[in-house]
Amino acid sequence: MNRPLILVTNDDGINAPGIRNLIDAVFPLGEVYVVAPDKPQSGMGHAITLNSTLRVQEHMNEKGIPEFSTSGTPVDCVKLAIKKILPRKPDLLVSGINHGSNSSISVIYSGTMSAAVEGALENIPSIGFSLCNHAIEANFSAAKYIASKIIEKVLQNKMPDYTCLNINIPSINLELINGIKVCRGAKAYWDEDFDERTDPYGRKYYWLTGCLNNYDKGEDTDEWALANNYVSVVPIHFDMTAHQHIKTIESWNLKI
Amino acid sequence: MNRPLILVTNDDGINAPGIRNLIDAVFPLGEVYVVAPDKPQSGMGHAITLNSTLRVQEHMNEKGIPEFSTSGTPVDCVKLAIKKILPRKPDLLVSGINHGSNSSISVIYSGTMSAAVEGALENIPSIGFSLCNHAIEANFSAAKYIASKIIEKVLQNKMPDYTCLNINIPSINLELINGIKVCRGAKAYWDEDFDERTDPYGRKYYWLTGCLNNYDKGEDTDEWALANNYVSVVPIHFDMTAHQHIKTIESWNLKI
Repeated sequence: MNRPLILVTNDDGINAPGIRNLIDAVFPLGEVYVVAPDKPQSGMGHAITLNSTLRVQEHMNEKGIPEFSTSGTPVDCVKLAIKKILPRKPDLLVSGINHGSNSSISVIYSGTMSAAVEGALENIPSIGFSLCNHAIEANFSAAKYIASKIIEKVLQNKMPDYTCLNINIPSINLELINGIKVCRGAKAYWDEDFDERTDPYGRKYYWLTGCLNNYDKGEDTDEWALANNYVSVVPIHFDMTAHQHIKTIESWNLKI
Repeated sequence: MNRPLILVTNDDGINAPGIRNLIDAVFPLGEVYVVAPDKPQSGMGHAITLNSTLRVQEHMNEKGIPEFSTSGTPVDCVKLAIKKILPRKPDLLVSGINHGSNSSISVIYSGTMSAAVEGALENIPSIGFSLCNHAIEANFSAAKYIASKIIEKVLQNKMPDYTCLNINIPSINLELINGIKVCRGAKAYWDEDFDERTDPYGRKYYWLTGCLNNYDKGEDTDEWALANNYVSVVPIHFDMTAHQHIKTIESWNLKI
């Protein structure tokens, strides 16, 4: 059997420690290609580049893995990889390891997870990994080990069609992690605060800041798992239709 | 009773004909604020601005409507509006009218729809409108009329919690439109093609292009409605958990 073709991407940029650890984790498991943004693209959600051009630059790393940095978003990277760079459709897509949590509603804002969702759209088994620690110097050793264990399982099993996994890893030592929990995403939202400043020319500007407000007390959620030192695994789909509300809207009897 | 407070935004930028028509449509229906990007932001999905600063500029239009252009994405505009600009939480959020369709899977890439989804996240009744015509000179008169009819109905009824509507309008004269259909989003994906060019300095670059590949033959979809000259109305949610697959992933028995 051919070794699986594995596409690695992220949103923190091709030089981030998180993706370097993820490359190490998948290197023994298949034929690896890296296609990732040439700069940080956190919070890019499912953005694609329509109003400007895309550039691609090839590198070869010391392990002989072909690496490509692009000027685009994480989703652009997946599209470029599939349509322009890879020799064939990949058997697996892995994204991350993100510097910082992508639990609950953060999936929708996350470039890491949007790359995985784009893989799912193409029906490629896809996984996004995030370590719950924003620091550039975060310790990825437990996360790298857990990622490799989960990737092995995904390669052995059949991912449900058009589905990806959102995996968040507590930022603690491996021996303190209580296990891996399959969960639903908690119902939560980001409560923003805009940090208002004045530039040297007297004009106002803002930085977007905020904190996650979890209004979901369920013990079957990713937030609960992470708070209790479990790795959270949430299967993710992309069907945005609220099927349960179609009849309600029909009852409004909309007419021209 | 106070007049409803209505937030208008879009992704084509504050000067696009589509938003100008939407402002006209809502002007008689409530107290209107416009907070929209200062430049085109198509395809920005649910992106937020984390790596750079945000600017906001106030204008006053000839109708006395307060208008604010921002340097951010459509989702940034919604967050800035709610947290910094509006006197209170709006009673309604309308986004568009987009220049071009946002049917089926395009919801996930669309800045117009991501602004509506962000409204839904805050439990604000929210609607995204799109005209199936990319041209800057498209005729918005039927779309404007239909938008005002639908907005009146939404103000009369109670939107299901944490839900928004994705409304696509065929680009034909009003008398040729067969009616309004409540639908599910068709299962479809964008089949990309990268237009490869060479810059004046001999280096390659790409433009992202593509066409929507609809593999869903259902007659209850938005694609079917639009192809048959109906306005499509799809209720949209943001619960990305694939609840139906939790048991399957549990059966893999993931362990550290």
